[in-house]
Amino acid sequence: MKLPLGYRYAATYAGIRKVNKEDLALIVSDTPASAAAVMTTNRVQAAPVKIARQHLRASRGRVSAILANAGNANCATRTGDEVAIACCKAVAKLLKVPVAQVIPASTGVIGVELDPSLIVNALPRLMEDLTESRFPDVSHAIMTTDLVPKVAFAEVPLKGGEVQIAGMTKGSGMIQPNMATTLGFVMTDAAISPIHLREMLVRASERSFNRLSVDGDTSTNDIVMLLANGASGIKPSERERRTLEESLYLVMEDLAEQIARDGEGATKLITIRVLGAVDEESATRIARSIANSPLVKTAIAGSDPNWGRILSAAGNAGVEFDPMKVDISLNGVPVCTGGLAAEFSEADLKQKLDERECMIRFEIKGGGKGETRFWTCDFTEGYIKINASYRS
Amino acid sequence: MKLPLGYRYAATYAGIRKVNKEDLALIVSDTPASAAAVMTTNRVQAAPVKIARQHLRASRGRVSAILANAGNANCATRTGDEVAIACCKAVAKLLKVPVAQVIPASTGVIGVELDPSLIVNALPRLMEDLTESRFPDVSHAIMTTDLVPKVAFAEVPLKGGEVQIAGMTKGSGMIQPNMATTLGFVMTDAAISPIHLREMLVRASERSFNRLSVDGDTSTNDIVMLLANGASGIKPSERERRTLEESLYLVMEDLAEQIARDGEGATKLITIRVLGAVDEESATRIARSIANSPLVKTAIAGSDPNWGRILSAAGNAGVEFDPMKVDISLNGVPVCTGGLAAEFSEADLKQKLDERECMIRFEIKGGGKGETRFWTCDFTEGYIKINASYRS
Repeated sequence: MKLPLGYRYAATYAGIRKVNKEDLALIVSDTPASAAAVMTTNRVQAAPVKIARQHLRASRGRVSAILANAGNANCATRTGDEVAIACCKAVAKLLKVPVAQVIPASTGVIGVELDPSLIVNALPRLMEDLTESRFPDVSHAIMTTDLVPKVAFAEVPLKGGEVQIAGMTKGSGMIQPNMATTLGFVMTDAAISPIHLREMLVRASERSFNRLSVDGDTSTNDIVMLLANGASGIKPSERERRTLEESLYLVMEDLAEQIARDGEGATKLITIRVLGAVDEESATRIARSIANSPLVKTAIAGSDPNWGRILSAAGNAGVEFDPMKVDISLNGVPVCTGGLAAEFSEADLKQKLDERECMIRFEIKGGGKGETRFWTCDFTEGYIKINASYRS
Repeated sequence: MKLPLGYRYAATYAGIRKVNKEDLALIVSDTPASAAAVMTTNRVQAAPVKIARQHLRASRGRVSAILANAGNANCATRTGDEVAIACCKAVAKLLKVPVAQVIPASTGVIGVELDPSLIVNALPRLMEDLTESRFPDVSHAIMTTDLVPKVAFAEVPLKGGEVQIAGMTKGSGMIQPNMATTLGFVMTDAAISPIHLREMLVRASERSFNRLSVDGDTSTNDIVMLLANGASGIKPSERERRTLEESLYLVMEDLAEQIARDGEGATKLITIRVLGAVDEESATRIARSIANSPLVKTAIAGSDPNWGRILSAAGNAGVEFDPMKVDISLNGVPVCTGGLAAEFSEADLKQKLDERECMIRFEIKGGGKGETRFWTCDFTEGYIKINASYRS
């Protein structure tokens, strides 16, 4: 994989988490990059989310650095805003850029004061370590209960040459669309204005991160940032921006799927495909209702083809449809035809459901053209174990 | 406890469930009772729900009998309507009442054909067994994964004498407001018209069964019925109906709380009290969002005072509030004041949270008069175990 030009990365252990594992990361663009962000819709917003919004506005969508930490969400604390600003200022001073060009991002526990000196003291170390090749280190540093780092890449050939997209994200609980939890950072070396970048990001998020649910909880800290620094020297035409957006979407879809696969306690990736709804939004509502049903997710965990729960969950989506026109299949095996039980071999299907991936296909026959894809994971005792003692 | 006059009950094992445990029950009013019902809002509605609605309309709100079975939801089956009607007809014939005065209700697995002969053949046995004292037998027969039967009673002194209310319900998964799963049957011997009965039931449900969530799933089979046969000879005045409604509400609140306490895998009853919202609806939305958060429910399971999750869940309710004005306490111990961490002894609070009941108090200081109470339960590995293999 090739990385986009003109970005450098570093990560270190600053002592924010209890365990000695990288918890502070810096992404620097050598020249101020165009930037766009989508952020949590939670009414409770962490300080870094608020400051990120202010900085993006003040800098008119120009970003030189992203400073991210794990282990503390810097949310619901006395000093949240001050801490976020102080850290951004320290980065700005070292990089000699305006403070509004530094974006903070945090993930971790809510309601615990974050000591800014931990971060400020670690910054010189980070600065020294900045190199193009430390992209993976940053993807490790933002992990919380994630088991694996999550990265995705695309090379996009355009008339003037090739541009690169590289993305990283973290999961893996408190994940539900609008936004999925997560910190997500996507870099490209194409030259794109902040306005166009924002349009691309909003549309690509809608079909990727916003079609993802692990547990139906939307975090206070969600932010996905897209940077475009133009270091490739290539400025896509209007048509080429569409090509680039498609690649961006594939990168973000890949990241979203990786979050679902690594959901807390998950043993299976569940992909939900809904077809035949009135429109895409109705299809997505049905898919989300299925994805958020603990009864569906526990059945899949147990390799139980309990399609009645899928039909019932769809019925709770607040979308009109005729249950007698619904076909459901699991990993390609029809389990419900016209709203009624289909004939299938329980033993064979159980074996298929023991695999690491489950595809739920829900089609309304003779319905509209609305369709969607949505990602979630099964719901296991592991999720309970992880979350019954997250703080301790 | 005294039972309302003029009702008889019976239950038997008809072979619908796999295990030999009562699965068929009959409630008979000696004279046709005024009746009202609230039913599931799921787009997928089981045959008994549809037939119940038709019968109530056709009989103009008069009911002589409720025929309830567990072990099979009679939902998403080829023969659902026919089966429900055939069973009602058989009851009507034996009781010599119009078929529209018989209401069917089913709970259990979805998508499996229900053999009506099992029920029809068991009816003569049920008829012979009908007595006033077999009320508890019916509350046992409607149980599915419930660990305990759920009943509640009230004596209501009115000017003309005392009238009785007796209610029963079942849980314990696929439980979420509008409606809570559940079959619920409430009988009184007061004389009340179907119109007034409906008003009373709708209001009382709103503040009881609709403020209950076990897992956020609304079933296809939910029905709560209220019967008033007038056997006490007492016809409440308009003012007395309000007294009666208050007692009805207390009975239904008691039943709803029992469902939460006995939620699948639950070890703790969680009562959520929200105060200071703009109005009651906003308060209820906040409470429901907290109640449906797996992260809150797993934290309570682990006796972890993770109030950040509570604040975050409230922030996802789609209700405007200032997070910096929020106070949260757990079992009387302030854990969050003005949106920030309060000082508390973790060890002491952990001990308090190890108890079987947890009260989450969420107050918006200086807010409106909107308040609510809402019930749910903690989320444990037991829930996963039960639901990963419900059908097998």
